[in-house]
This record gives sequence, structure tokens and C-alpha cells, in this order.
Amino acid sequence: MYKLASKEGAGATVVRVGSASFGDGSFTMIAGPCAIESRAQIELTAKFVASAGAAMVRGGAYKPRTSPYAFQGLGEEGVKLIAAACQGAGLPAVVEALAETQLLVLDWYVDMIQIGARNMQNFTLLQAVARTGKPVLLKRAPFATLDEVLYAAEYILLEGNPNVVLCERGVRGFDPQTRNLFDLGGALRLKELTHLPVIADPSHATGRASLIEPLVLAAAAAGLDGAIVEVHPEPPTALSDAAQALDFDAFAQLMRKLEALRGSLESKPRLAACK
Amino acid sequence: MYKLASKEGAGATVVRVGSASFGDGSFTMIAGPCAIESRAQIELTAKFVASAGAAMVRGGAYKPRTSPYAFQGLGEEGVKLIAAACQGAGLPAVVEALAETQLLVLDWYVDMIQIGARNMQNFTLLQAVARTGKPVLLKRAPFATLDEVLYAAEYILLEGNPNVVLCERGVRGFDPQTRNLFDLGGALRLKELTHLPVIADPSHATGRASLIEPLVLAAAAAGLDGAIVEVHPEPPTALSDAAQALDFDAFAQLMRKLEALRGSLESKPRLAACK
Amino acid sequence: MYKLASKEGAGATVVRVGSASFGDGSFTMIAGPCAIESRAQIELTAKFVASAGAAMVRGGAYKPRTSPYAFQGLGEEGVKLIAAACQGAGLPAVVEALAETQLLVLDWYVDMIQIGARNMQNFTLLQAVARTGKPVLLKRAPFATLDEVLYAAEYILLEGNPNVVLCERGVRGFDPQTRNLFDLGGALRLKELTHLPVIADPSHATGRASLIEPLVLAAAAAGLDGAIVEVHPEPPTALSDAAQALDFDAFAQLMRKLEALRGSLESKPRLAACK
Amino acid sequence: MYKLASKEGAGATVVRVGSASFGDGSFTMIAGPCAIESRAQIELTAKFVASAGAAMVRGGAYKPRTSPYAFQGLGEEGVKLIAAACQGAGLPAVVEALAETQLLVLDWYVDMIQIGARNMQNFTLLQAVARTGKPVLLKRAPFATLDEVLYAAEYILLEGNPNVVLCERGVRGFDPQTRNLFDLGGALRLKELTHLPVIADPSHATGRASLIEPLVLAAAAAGLDGAIVEVHPEPPTALSDAAQALDFDAFAQLMRKLEALRGSLESKPRLAACK
Repeated sequence: MYKLASKEGAGATVVRVGSASFGDGSFTMIAGPCAIESRAQIELTAKFVASAGAAMVRGGAYKPRTSPYAFQGLGEEGVKLIAAACQGAGLPAVVEALAETQLLVLDWYVDMIQIGARNMQNFTLLQAVARTGKPVLLKRAPFATLDEVLYAAEYILLEGNPNVVLCERGVRGFDPQTRNLFDLGGALRLKELTHLPVIADPSHATGRASLIEPLVLAAAAAGLDGAIVEVHPEPPTALSDAAQALDFDAFAQLMRKLEALRGSLESKPRLAACK
Repeated sequence: MYKLASKEGAGATVVRVGSASFGDGSFTMIAGPCAIESRAQIELTAKFVASAGAAMVRGGAYKPRTSPYAFQGLGEEGVKLIAAACQGAGLPAVVEALAETQLLVLDWYVDMIQIGARNMQNFTLLQAVARTGKPVLLKRAPFATLDEVLYAAEYILLEGNPNVVLCERGVRGFDPQTRNLFDLGGALRLKELTHLPVIADPSHATGRASLIEPLVLAAAAAGLDGAIVEVHPEPPTALSDAAQALDFDAFAQLMRKLEALRGSLESKPRLAACK
Repeated sequence: MYKLASKEGAGATVVRVGSASFGDGSFTMIAGPCAIESRAQIELTAKFVASAGAAMVRGGAYKPRTSPYAFQGLGEEGVKLIAAACQGAGLPAVVEALAETQLLVLDWYVDMIQIGARNMQNFTLLQAVARTGKPVLLKRAPFATLDEVLYAAEYILLEGNPNVVLCERGVRGFDPQTRNLFDLGGALRLKELTHLPVIADPSHATGRASLIEPLVLAAAAAGLDGAIVEVHPEPPTALSDAAQALDFDAFAQLMRKLEALRGSLESKPRLAACK
Repeated sequence: MYKLASKEGAGATVVRVGSASFGDGSFTMIAGPCAIESRAQIELTAKFVASAGAAMVRGGAYKPRTSPYAFQGLGEEGVKLIAAACQGAGLPAVVEALAETQLLVLDWYVDMIQIGARNMQNFTLLQAVARTGKPVLLKRAPFATLDEVLYAAEYILLEGNPNVVLCERGVRGFDPQTRNLFDLGGALRLKELTHLPVIADPSHATGRASLIEPLVLAAAAAGLDGAIVEVHPEPPTALSDAAQALDFDAFAQLMRKLEALRGSLESKPRLAACK
């Protein structure tokens, strides 16, 4: 059984990433493009999401693509671009690692390292990322049970790195109407089982921009610790995941509604203790 | 392709069931026990949920049970008990029909007839229930695509009965941590495809009382039209689904949080038009 | 727990349907069109499949269709046509029942009554079909666990009807490359849990005519008790399920290969006792 | 779209691994323990499976374990033990790689390198393994569509390594009666889409020793190119996957039945061309 990840006898863990924090009762927004495409694109986006209230910026530099013929990301160049953009915007950055060879660069330039859903059980990578000491954003694989998610987190915690944020990004469903099946019930159950913060990724979970706003509001009302969403200055021209990115206006509207919602929550919804 | 159920060229349908309504922008709560067990149980529950703000009472009289050895419900006697209890509480009642032979009694005594998840594609029953003229609560089967849900609704609409409320109650998942997998993204997508109201059933979706409150709040924040939850005076003694029923205190707390939440929603979350 | 369906302390049940039998160590083939379309179509098909070695004829008269706009079957007229065709061909017939009102006709004209996947948990129908005393072909619902299948069988057995044949017809999968996901491992595990015969329906399981032959051979080699396949004189013109029907040549070839395969099986593959 | 993996315009690829071959019309058996545990265990097993007719030996040295507290394998020492055992038995060996740092050792000592299901979309590892030039056994991830499997293969083929054998090892199902859901229909459809050989892994697919024999016979009758099964001298004492390993007697019986079956297959079942 997992031990370090268990809620048993543990208070809620607060993970701090620069000025952002997860697990302290706030609802923390991470926003940015699926892929870093150019200096202008990432600078513009970082500045805008900061002004709209996001706490962190996301952007893919090494892109894990199903097809070898799809855009694979700008690599190290992309990492440097997001680092510069985030410095300008005053926000921390999170970027996904696909391989150990990328960790030196990521450790130097970014504030949090993401383990993507495809690598949730790439245990060698989990351990290597853990050893950088950087906070880790660990995404649930589309087929993973909650136990498997917590065992993956345990691999990181065992290396002495306590700063793990879990992320529900949709499990594989059977209806092509949504890209994946957003498992909000599972994410809430996860919070009953572990002391680690849990956030939602409705962009990958549904693959539809129109569903992002309602699902972020749902995640906030239900008591998750934050959300990560894709924002792009001009979604139709995005090099990847165009259908699931918000434009600036839609993101600003989402943040306004989120602000109104937060005020109304007397306290976080009650979750039972682990059993 | 389904036609009558499509959003194409249609405004939102408002379904009225006595004093309750679905689809008019409000968030409508249906509450009551899984099974009607006795006069005292259903009267007590109906009165309490009415006082706490529920708009309708639910209760099973004919119980569809996986095992023939499980409690099968009080049948016609149960229908009469919930009808009397609801008259006392001043709220309309919804009861599930399992067979055509039950429709005469249900049509006489209750305000809305439910088609359960197991019967979503029992087309003969769909048509017979439709012809009673009573509003229909149609639950999504645990394996049904959204298209299949809408085709099932079409069977009812084609009989000339426009009063259909759809209900997401969880699809079959792979992790026993929750009884089913609550597909909130699918429910929201459903609202983009159809003009019919869509509500949530987090009790059956998760099988865990502790997850009901956060999921109802999530459904409200996301813009669904209501929820149906199981409430029992003494959950540990319930003859069915004991693990997923709220007690009175928990239901009252849920309704208070829901009230606070509603005030904060400037308007319902934006959903894209059907395409 | 189910009792009558359990293997515990029971030998294998042999179900006899006229000249056909299931569960005696043979591999029994049922073949015929998805829907009965005309006298000529069903007569021609029954005669052909009989000559090629099938033991029973299938054909739908009351068609359960996802869409109310699809061909709904010939009804009672269809039942009479298949009965006449089967008398001519010397084979027993199986037809699906969708509602209790159809049972009088089906009981009079056909040899075995099918409960379709959509009605596996329509317990009222299960009991009514059981009470006809006719052998029952019970299809697994696309989301049903093996326990749920056996509980559904228990509803029939409890009515005093011991003649139940179970059928695996595919569970809901996530890849549209096949219509459903044929669960051969589950069908074999079912045989470890119950004394009832278990057959395969690769037509509905895959929705692809090209996969029927290899899957029937697989089912035979693995030790299932038979298969039910769709055969049509001219598949491209079929009123339903055109893509998954074999033409006469393909069916004859399948039966030849099946014959060769049977000779080679010294005995049925070993299955562990239930535990 | 994938190109190099497509069947379009391609004959069947034959992959040779020492004395074993896949895709030439034969049914090739790989057998051995889940984990290499000791010199005695792997030597005994290799010798036995060779005498019973296996064409290759499998054994895990670097074990990908859900839990960090489970046995993690003997590592490089294990690789050397299986290499020595296979030399003694006269059979080629396949071992799974979890990380690039293991490739130097694996390339030196073993004949085929396995990419496990958890790493099917670890594209960095796919490319690194491809560049060793060794034949690759690529397992389908438990959530992967056939398109995703073929894109993963494309990553290997694009590096100039044409020797890829695909393996169906079960997708995630919803019924704990079997560990995974063995997708034989999907494996057969895969052979219609690609020219690469496809084999079955019923040990991981079902997690039950009693289902391995019937599923291997099924795979052979259906026309797959081989199977990989777990065999252990004393399954109850195995350090991993004890419930799904065959003992020597059961493996010998399986090979006898397989031999009898092969003789009966006049030719491989007909599979349609890709469309």
C-alpha cells in the first residue's frame, strides 16, 4: 500500500511554486498555450493571463505527440522563451518533461515540472524529476485507477520531494463527443485518499473550448485546488489542440465568473476522511 | 438522426411538474429515499426535504434490483404512500416505472414517471410511458453515448409528449473507488446538443454519500438544470443503497451551500450552440 | 449471491432446442439474418444455412433500434415467416422478444426466445419470458459484469425454467475500429462461474464481417459452446446491420474451417473450477 | 496518418529473432517467468520451455511496478542470467527496457527488446530502442486505440528499424473478474491495418492461469502470429504475477494442444485487406 501519499494522519499539504500555492484553500489557475510557438505568442499570453488573474503559466516545449509527423515543440528554445515571458509577467512557469536529458534545462529555467499522462507510470522519469527537487505536476493517466495515481506519487515522495500536485485530465471514455471523460467524482475521491492538492485539466479532458468554463466553475465549487487550462491568442491558428484552447476574451470571462463564485463559497465542500 | 430532440432551431424547453420546473434557469432539487420503505419513512422524508428547499420528492416503489434476492420494493402500496406523503408536503413526486402494467397506477398517483438507466433502450416502455402524457425523467444508461440518449428521448417526443428531463447518473468506469463515473462533461455537452433540461444524479454516479454535496454544487456551478439525490432519515438502516444516501443534516447543509452558490452566479455558464 | 446459476456443485447443463443442443461438448452454430425482411429472404437463408451445417436459424421480427426512424421489423408477420422457413429447413428458430405482449405469438411459433443486450436487466421481461417455459438465449449487456449476467440468469432460473444459454456479444469499448469489444476472456471466465452454456456473437461484437470467421474459430478452439452469426443472401442490401453480415459463400467457408478445427480438438480446453 | 506501419501496398512483414520468426504463417510461442529471480529459476525454465516447443524465452530484469515497494527485478544481473540460460537452451531472449540507460546492456546480451504497455507512448524511449537496431516487441497500452498503437510503431519504423512485433495484452475493462479485457477482435483488426506481426499476451490480459490455454488456442485458431505467456517452475512462490503463471505441466499440455490445433488449420483464417 502507498504510505507517504496517504491522507491517514496527515494534514493537507500546501505546495508552493514561487508566488503560487496549491492546497491552501484557494483555487489556483494555471493558463497558457498547449505549445510554445514563438516569443511573441508566449509573451503575449503570459502577460494577458497574468493580468486576468492566473497564478501560473503553462506551455509545452517538448511535445508528446501521438503521431511522429505532428509538430514536436521548440524544445530547449521553447523553455527559454517561456522562462523569459514568465519573468516579464511575474508568474512562475510549468513545462512538461518527456525525458531525463531535458531535466538539466528544465531545472534551470522553470519553476515546476510536469509529468504528462502518457508518462505517469514511467517510473524512471518520475524518480529523475523528483530528484531535481522542483515541485511536480503529476497528471493521471487516462486508464489509471486512483491507487495507481497514488503509487506514482509515492515514487516521487520516496525520493524526498514532497511537492506533488495531482491533476485529473480525463480518462478514456467511449463517446467521441468529448475527447476524454472528465472524472470529477474520481478527483474528489482522490482528495479523500491523499493529502496532496488535486487540480483539474478540463481542456484535455473534453477537447472542447465551450466546456472549459463550466467545468472550471464546477471544479471550484466542488472544492478542488485549481485548474490548468489552455489559452492561445488566436486558437484557430494554434499548432496543436486548437479546438480546446480559450481565446483571451473567453479566459477573462471565465476568471470574472470564477471570482464571483469564490466569494459565495462559505467554505470548501466537506470531504470525508480517508477510509 | 434525431430531430425533435435536437437543439437546432429550438429554444430551451421548460418542463413543469406541478410546482417544480426544469430548464428555466433555476437549479431544481429532487430528493427522497432510494426505496419507499414505510409510511413513516416517506412522510418524514418528504416533509423534511420540502422544508429544506427541495422542489420534488423521489422514491422507488418498484425496485429494479440486480439480484432477485434483494428487496424489490413495496409496489402499488409504495406508490400510494409517496402520493400521500407528497400531498402532505406540498411537493410533486417522481417514481420509476419498470413495466407497462405499472403505468395505470403511476399515472393516477404520481406527477412524473422515471425511466431508469437499465430501461433507457426498452423502447416499448418508453413509448408506453410517453403516452401517459406525464412528464418523463429519462436516465442515461451506464454505457450510452449522447446520441443514444437523444434517440431514446426521441422515442418519447415522437409520441407527442414534449416533457422530457434527461439525467446523467454515471457511466460504467474501471475504478471501484466510485460506483460509476459521473460524466459532467458529457452532461454539459448534452445541453449543447438538445433543448431538453439535463439534471445530475450524483448518488448513483458515485455511490458515496461524501461526494454528493460537492458534485451537486459542481452541477449547479456548471449550469445543469438540477439534481436528484437520495435522502433517508437513517441511512445505515436503509433497505437499499445505504452507502449513498444523505441524512437530514447533510441534506440541509447541502441546500444552504447551494443557496449561497446560486446567489453568486451572475448567469448560467456559457454553453456553445449545437454544431 | 446468485445460487441457481452457480457452478458450485453442479455439472454442465445441456440445453436442448429441438434438434439443437448447447453445452454437451459440441460447438453449435446459429445463423440467419439480422432482420426477417421477406418470405423469400428468410426461406432462402434458412435452407442455405441448414445445408451448410448450422443447427438453428436466427432472425429478428421485432427490432430494437436505437433510432425510431430505422426499420423496426415485420413484427408478427416476421415471426410466422421464420417459423415456416424453419419448418421447411428442418431447424429450430430463435427470435428476440422486446415486450410481454409479443410472448403469446413467440411462444406459439418459435423454439427459443432471445433476450437482447438492451433488455438484460429488464427483469419484468426476463420473468415473463421464463414463464413461457421456452429455452432462453440471454445476451450480456454491453456494460454488464459477469455477476450481473448471472443475476439476470438467476431471475429466469428462479421461475423454474432451467434452459438458459448465455451469449457474449461484446462490451462497450473505446475504439471505433470495432463496434464493440469482444470479451472472449470474460466468456471463458463465465464458464468457470456457471454450469450454463455460453456462446459467442461476433457479428454484434465487432460489426465487421471480415472478423466473424476468425472469431468463431477462436471461440470454438477456446471451448465455448457455440456461436450466433448474421448471414444474409445479399449483405449490401440488408435493411439492418449490412456491414456485419456474411454472404452465403463466406458462411460456407466458415463452416468448412470450423469442421476441420473440430476434428483437431482432442478435448475441450481445460477450464478451472469456479472459485 | 501513419505511413510505414500501414498495410496499404505492403506484403506481410516477417520479423526474425535468431531462430524464431514472426509473421511467416507460423504461430510462435514466447515463454518464461514474469521476473528473472535466480540462475536456477531462469535456467530451469528456459530449458523446459525449449523442450516443450517454445521458440523464445521471456523474463523481466527491470520490472515496472505500480508500487515502489514491490520487487523491482535483478537489473543487469538478471539480463546476464537470462542471456546465459538462453544460450544453454538454444533460444533467443526478449527482455523489457524501462529506460535508455539500460539499452547498452540489453543490446549486448539479448535478442529482442520489449517496450511495455506503460511505455507505449514514451516516444523518447521508442526512438532510443529503435536505434539499437534490435527487433522490438511493442505492447499495446491498456487504453490505446489501434491508431495510437500504429503511430507508436511508426516512431520505431521511422528510425530505420523495420523489425517490430505488436502485442495485444488486454485493455482496461470494468469487471475485476479478469485483470484486463483481452481484445482479440482488436488484435485481428490490427492485422487488417498493418503488415506487422501481431501476437497475444493472455497472461497479462486476464491475470488468470486457467484462461491462458484457451486464449492461446483461440489466438492460434484466429490467425494471430504467436503468443507470449508466463511460465514459472513453481508459480505459488513467484515474486510477481503468481496468479497468472503456468507451471511446467500446464505449459506442456498447452503446447500439445497447440500442436494438434495447428495441424487442422488448412490455412490461416481470411482477413480482409485494409480499408
